[in-house]
Amino acid sequence: MRNLKLTLAYDGTRLVGWQRQAEGDSVQGVLEDALARFEGAPVTVHGAGRTDAGVHALGQVASAQVTFAHDATTLTRALNAQLPEDIRVLAVEDVSLEFHARFNARSKTYRYQIRHGTIADPFERAYVWHMPERLSVDAMRAAAGVLIGTHDFAAFQSMGTPVRDSVRTVTQSTLADAEGRMAYEISGDGFLRHMVRAIVGTLVEIGRGFREPESMASLLRSSARSDAGATAPPQGLFLVRVDYH
Amino acid sequence: MRNLKLTLAYDGTRLVGWQRQAEGDSVQGVLEDALARFEGAPVTVHGAGRTDAGVHALGQVASAQVTFAHDATTLTRALNAQLPEDIRVLAVEDVSLEFHARFNARSKTYRYQIRHGTIADPFERAYVWHMPERLSVDAMRAAAGVLIGTHDFAAFQSMGTPVRDSVRTVTQSTLADAEGRMAYEISGDGFLRHMVRAIVGTLVEIGRGFREPESMASLLRSSARSDAGATAPPQGLFLVRVDYH
Repeated sequence: MRNLKLTLAYDGTRLVGWQRQAEGDSVQGVLEDALARFEGAPVTVHGAGRTDAGVHALGQVASAQVTFAHDATTLTRALNAQLPEDIRVLAVEDVSLEFHARFNARSKTYRYQIRHGTIADPFERAYVWHMPERLSVDAMRAAAGVLIGTHDFAAFQSMGTPVRDSVRTVTQSTLADAEGRMAYEISGDGFLRHMVRAIVGTLVEIGRGFREPESMASLLRSSARSDAGATAPPQGLFLVRVDYH
Repeated sequence: MRNLKLTLAYDGTRLVGWQRQAEGDSVQGVLEDALARFEGAPVTVHGAGRTDAGVHALGQVASAQVTFAHDATTLTRALNAQLPEDIRVLAVEDVSLEFHARFNARSKTYRYQIRHGTIADPFERAYVWHMPERLSVDAMRAAAGVLIGTHDFAAFQSMGTPVRDSVRTVTQSTLADAEGRMAYEISGDGFLRHMVRAIVGTLVEIGRGFREPESMASLLRSSARSDAGATAPPQGLFLVRVDYH
């Protein structure tokens, strides 16, 4: 038995998300199917973060236990030859049998892209949230900074899928802005379902002046999802990186 | 009667090309249909360049004669509300009745993007020609420079659709290269069908060492399409700009 760590990039536009579904291409599904061909038996692939349909990854990490003997370089090439063009294996490494892509992740970093402009760029439509209105960067930055630290993020989790412990630690929460091209980056030890998109939806409401920057702190105390902003659309979101000890 | 000049950007990935076809979305087709709704009668749209399926535009220009009275700003917004997201009207201007987007074009500029790397970037697959091999930039630049001037480009036209006069004037033919990201730009007074892609296909064969840089000059004398390189794939090509007097 050996344990593989796979680093992946994918364009989520056409995909049903990370998790295998009854219909459509999922990252987990196509990877498991490709690895099963080498293994001659079913293989289970664990991903560090379960990205939704339309969400992209620059550096998703997955792990899978297999028995076949192909070396990492051969396997990278062979997997990329089998996978659809919108999913690429960037690296394959042999790791200890204890390694689990999700449970061992120390930190994940997500980026959310927002573009301001009267006319949406047709080449960016699948990778940004287009915003005809001007946003107040100062107000958004003030609110983004409040998220750093250990808080109960219950107000930012998907309504249908609450978890018992919604306390998470955020280590980075920054907004870069250059000529209407905004990139919000957040790093933390774990993220609730739809948490980044709910945070971005709230930041945008603050940036549009519909909500005070100070309201971010109240949301961390309130725990009521209905108090936070709408969930931002999936296509602006990228899983940038997963860090391990 | 008034004459409109429209500046357009489109992502050609999903489109059947500029020209209206029996099936699928063409730029001409969706524009004509949208304008016909304002006009209450059929409208003919002329494009400066007939881009193929998969080819993109950053600044295509089209002209159309109409009678309705909407001002340019209102029309831009109304057209963008009706058009699919991969086609955007960047500007609408009223021009003299004599203006014709194709016949009056003084110069067109195309860009072709090539990427070198062992693993193709999943986010660029619809916008570049991915090349696992290293290309000799010096050899390609030497060959590209030969194209500048007035020549018979018959060796670079689509085999099925020869035109009587295949003499064209090229004013720019340059290759930029930065860390495996290549962009070839060519400007000229007119282009034969598939001419840019046949030139790029030939340049790539030169860059791979399958053909001498000096062979470019012979191709301009030979006039035989079979002597030139294979046609490069459409997705790397962008119509950048059309200039008028």
